[in-house]
This record gives sequence, structure tokens and C-alpha cells, in this order.
Amino acid sequence: MTAGLPMTVPAPGLPARVRIHEVGARDGLQNEQGVVPTEVKAEFVRRLAEAGLTTVEATSFVHPKWVPQLADAEQLFPLVSGLDGVRLPVLVPNERGLDRALALGARDVAVFASATESFARANLNRTVDEALAMFAPVVTRAVEHGLSVRGYLSMCFGDPWEGPVPVEQVVAVCRRLRDLGCDELSLGDTIGVATPGHVTRLLTALGEAGIPATALAVHFHDTYGQALANTLAALQHGVTTVDASAGGLGGCPYAKSATGNLATEDLVWMLHGLGIDTGVDLGRLTATSVWLAGQLGRPSPSRTVRALGGAASHKES
Amino acid sequence: MTAGLPMTVPAPGLPARVRIHEVGARDGLQNEQGVVPTEVKAEFVRRLAEAGLTTVEATSFVHPKWVPQLADAEQLFPLVSGLDGVRLPVLVPNERGLDRALALGARDVAVFASATESFARANLNRTVDEALAMFAPVVTRAVEHGLSVRGYLSMCFGDPWEGPVPVEQVVAVCRRLRDLGCDELSLGDTIGVATPGHVTRLLTALGEAGIPATALAVHFHDTYGQALANTLAALQHGVTTVDASAGGLGGCPYAKSATGNLATEDLVWMLHGLGIDTGVDLGRLTATSVWLAGQLGRPSPSRTVRALGGAASHKES
Repeated sequence: MTAGLPMTVPAPGLPARVRIHEVGARDGLQNEQGVVPTEVKAEFVRRLAEAGLTTVEATSFVHPKWVPQLADAEQLFPLVSGLDGVRLPVLVPNERGLDRALALGARDVAVFASATESFARANLNRTVDEALAMFAPVVTRAVEHGLSVRGYLSMCFGDPWEGPVPVEQVVAVCRRLRDLGCDELSLGDTIGVATPGHVTRLLTALGEAGIPATALAVHFHDTYGQALANTLAALQHGVTTVDASAGGLGGCPYAKSATGNLATEDLVWMLHGLGIDTGVDLGRLTATSVWLAGQLGRPSPSRTVRALGGAASHKES
Repeated sequence: MTAGLPMTVPAPGLPARVRIHEVGARDGLQNEQGVVPTEVKAEFVRRLAEAGLTTVEATSFVHPKWVPQLADAEQLFPLVSGLDGVRLPVLVPNERGLDRALALGARDVAVFASATESFARANLNRTVDEALAMFAPVVTRAVEHGLSVRGYLSMCFGDPWEGPVPVEQVVAVCRRLRDLGCDELSLGDTIGVATPGHVTRLLTALGEAGIPATALAVHFHDTYGQALANTLAALQHGVTTVDASAGGLGGCPYAKSATGNLATEDLVWMLHGLGIDTGVDLGRLTATSVWLAGQLGRPSPSRTVRALGGAASHKES
């Protein structure tokens, strides 16, 4: 292999190209304790785009008191919205959030639902039904404005209060999100408990319910180290959109170095090794994560960033 | 899921049972800088056995000046050799090492070869041919004594000096190890660069050369986070023996928290999630890794140990 690049050996039955939905700037940073300056966030988004990522989730138009880290959405979005050929999805929890996103010219929005009542209550202070009712006018209006709408679904595999989540329950909420008008659903393994057979079973059930793999994204957490194996199972099932976070940003608060999101670099290593096109320059992406780790003052949890970035991975580059 | 256990959802085409070849006490500890007391090593091996691991590589009969950490092989082996129903393979680099192992009653030995000339030179100070010539009488005599003989093969995917390693080259050395009399070959991705398609291609080529998946073990390193995805590809190809290291012990010296070996806990999480029997009690295994991390004074790099062991994972339990 060239230094920093895996040897390419395709495997049969996998997609030729995967679109990575980069969530580091939103899902990753929103868990940071110290507030990250708006200009650093903008630089992060710009560097991610320069590394070849074509979908970079930028921020969230939730109420600032819910997620203080993202209270600068109005200031940040205009700093990055001119990036050529890059989609910049933003979260919109309700109509007020959609209004703010529309006012700034956002073209891609996302709503976030839960497959379980417990997490809907904890995260949205609503029942699943109430949350979907809140999203209905958001999705309708977004579609009327010609926006693409992603529906995030949390707790698709396990829930910390309820335990294993029945596949049928997940399928039912997915169907309702599709019926609302979401054109892409992101299946979240929020607590990282999924294993590959579970992934295959859920994707099979969704296919049987009329939701094809091409309308889905997978969003795995690496809490138990399963994210990449689960991604392989999803690719084998025809999924072509994968969520990941540069540098594995988005750790669990209770374990300082534990990782939350699948690291984009680890994903890119596997995809490029499999001969799957992503458009991403792994060297530039790793350099971006090394740079951000320097800004945050701690090393990246990504294995690949540590291996390629070495001791520099927690220093300013 | 029960706390600490994934939900079980089998996937078609996978083995019903996997034998884990636990390498933490040898491959893991040999990279430790500070010498670990013999009694701690013995306790580690005993706890691994009590956690249900049936193959626990115990130590190495290399010359003490090569691996000072394992210079206590003569003292350690008798402390653990009475464990019921547990195989305790030991490394033997040459006839002198075999003599020492036989004198202590070892029943399972392993030799370690390289798929590349560069690593044979670096690790064994010999050409590949010279190394195999050195092993020939070792394997012959071990087989005559009724011992099982494993052949480790390093650098099966990439080599830091030579780059990608041609599959045919790996197959050729594997055939020679088989011809010597090795009954199991462990395919090592020593620098962790493999991806799933590469794994499938090598296993396919070995099958075509008359070496079935059931005579193979896979030994993946998690340097780029690929180990578990590669393991899934190997299982899909019929491999039923997987090497792993409790707690992910065996880090790269240049990156303090980077991981070398696949963590046994992360592997067990996936296997149990897939409904594959291992005989391992994940809770006891995690407790063992937490205990050892306390002895070594630093946290385990295993994602699962960190998630299940939490803040306790680097404290004495």
C-alpha cells in the first residue's frame, strides 16, 4: 500500500460508491463541554468540504437553551453556506427552527424522531406520536420549499431504559416518517449495541415494508467497537449512505476517551480498501481531525487518526 | 438486552461456534515496557480460563534476551498448567525452545514465520527459507511427541517495508508450513492494514490451494479500526478460530492508547450478538481486563471494556 492508504481489494456485492453523511460538526461538537468558537466550527466545516466530503451536517436550529454549543447557528451558517457542491444539512426540531433555517437559505434539513417512547420522552419531552405530530408540518413545509428532508431515528436497536427494540416497532415509525415526506431515513444505533445480524434483520424488514436500502442511511456508534462491522453488514444489504464523524468526534461523557460516533477515517479506510469510491482524501481528512483535536485539546478517538496522525494527533498542526 | 449483553440476532451462513485463541498473556504482555510480576501473569491466565476461554496462549520460550518480559516462562508455566480443560499454547522459536516446553509438559506449541523477507529479517534475523528450515525439526519433533502445532504467519496483508503482500506469496508460505506439519495456521495482519475484501481474497486463494478455512485462524490488529469487520468477513468465509487479546492488550509503542490486537471483549460482543457460541462469560472477562488494567496502571483500549467497565477500567478492582 501507499503510505496511509490501504491496499484495494474489492469484495463482490458491495456498492461502487458510498455517500458519507459527515456529522462531526453537529453531532460531534454538540457533546463538547467547552463552547467551540464559531470561527473554529466554520473552519472545520470548510476543511471537511476540502477533504472531499459532499454532505457536511453543519448545525442545529434547536432552541439555544437545549444545546448551548450550537446556539451560534445563525452566525455559523452564512460563514459556510457558499461552499461549492457541498450539501449542508441542518437539524430543525419544529416550525420555528425551520423558519430560521429557511431564512438563511438552507436547502437540506433533518428532523429527529425516536423509535422508543422512553427516548422520545427523554430527548423531546413528548410521546412518539406527539413528536411525529410536531414534525408533520415541518416536513410538509420543507418539501413545499423544495428542501430535502432527512428523518433521524434514534434507538433503532437498543434503548437504555427499554432494552432491545423490536424490529416491527422501528419499521412502524420509519413508515410514518416516510409517509410524512422524509426522503431519507437515518437509522441510529444510539447506544452502540447493534451487531451485524441485527442490522441485516432490520434492513430486511424495512425492505419488506417497502422502504428500500437506497432510501436509508445507517448511523452507528462505536461504543462496543461494532460500528464498522455493522456498516459492512449494511453495505452487503445495499445501503449506500453512511453517517460518520470526523475523528470519531462525539464521545460519551462518562468515559473520556470512549468513542460515540463511527470515525469517518476508519470508515474511509475500509471503503477505500474495498474499492468503494467516497471522493474523500484520507490524508486531508486526517489532517483536519488532527487540527480539530488540537483546537479541542485532546486526542481523537479514531484508530486511523491515531495511526496516521501519530503523536501529532492531539497537537496543533 | 440484558445489561452488558447484546441482543442476539443470528445471521445466515455463520458458524454456530467460534473458538477464541486468547493471546493477551503472551502477545499482549510481551509489548509491555515494565516487567509484569510472574504471579500477576499467572493470575491473569487463571482469570481468563475462569471467564471461559479454552485456549490461552501462556508464554514464549524464546531466548530471554529477545523478549525480557517473557523470561519467566519456566516459572510461569507450572503455575497455570494444571487448569482443567484449557489449552495453554506456548511459542517455541527453535529446538532449544521446544526442549524447554517439552520439559514442562506443554501440549500445544506454536512457531512464528513471516510472509515477507523484510519481516523475517527484522524479527528472526533470517530469510524466509532459513526460518522455515529452523522450524522444520521443531515441528517434526513436536508432532512426534503428539503436540498440536500452530504456525503463526506475520505480514499476511501488508508489510511496513514492502507494502502490499501478494496473496500468492502468503499462500506459498502457508503451504510450506502445512507441509512441515502445522495443524493450524494463524494469518496475521501485523500492521492492521487489511480490509474485508482482502481477507476474503486470501481465504479464497488458500481454499483453492487445499487449505480449508477450518485449518485457519485469523489474527487481526485494530490499528485502523478494521479488525472486527475483517473478522466478520472471515466468519462469512467459514473461519471458526479467531485470535484476540483480552482488553485489546498489545498496543503500538508509538501511540500510548492506540490498540494493537483485536480486543477479546469487542469480539465476544459481536459473536454473542450473532448468536455464535464462545463459552465466554463477557462480564467475567471484562472484570479480568479491568483488573489487569489496574495492575498495569493504564486503561484498556477495548471499547467494550471501557463501556462496561466505565471509570473503573483503569483502577484496581
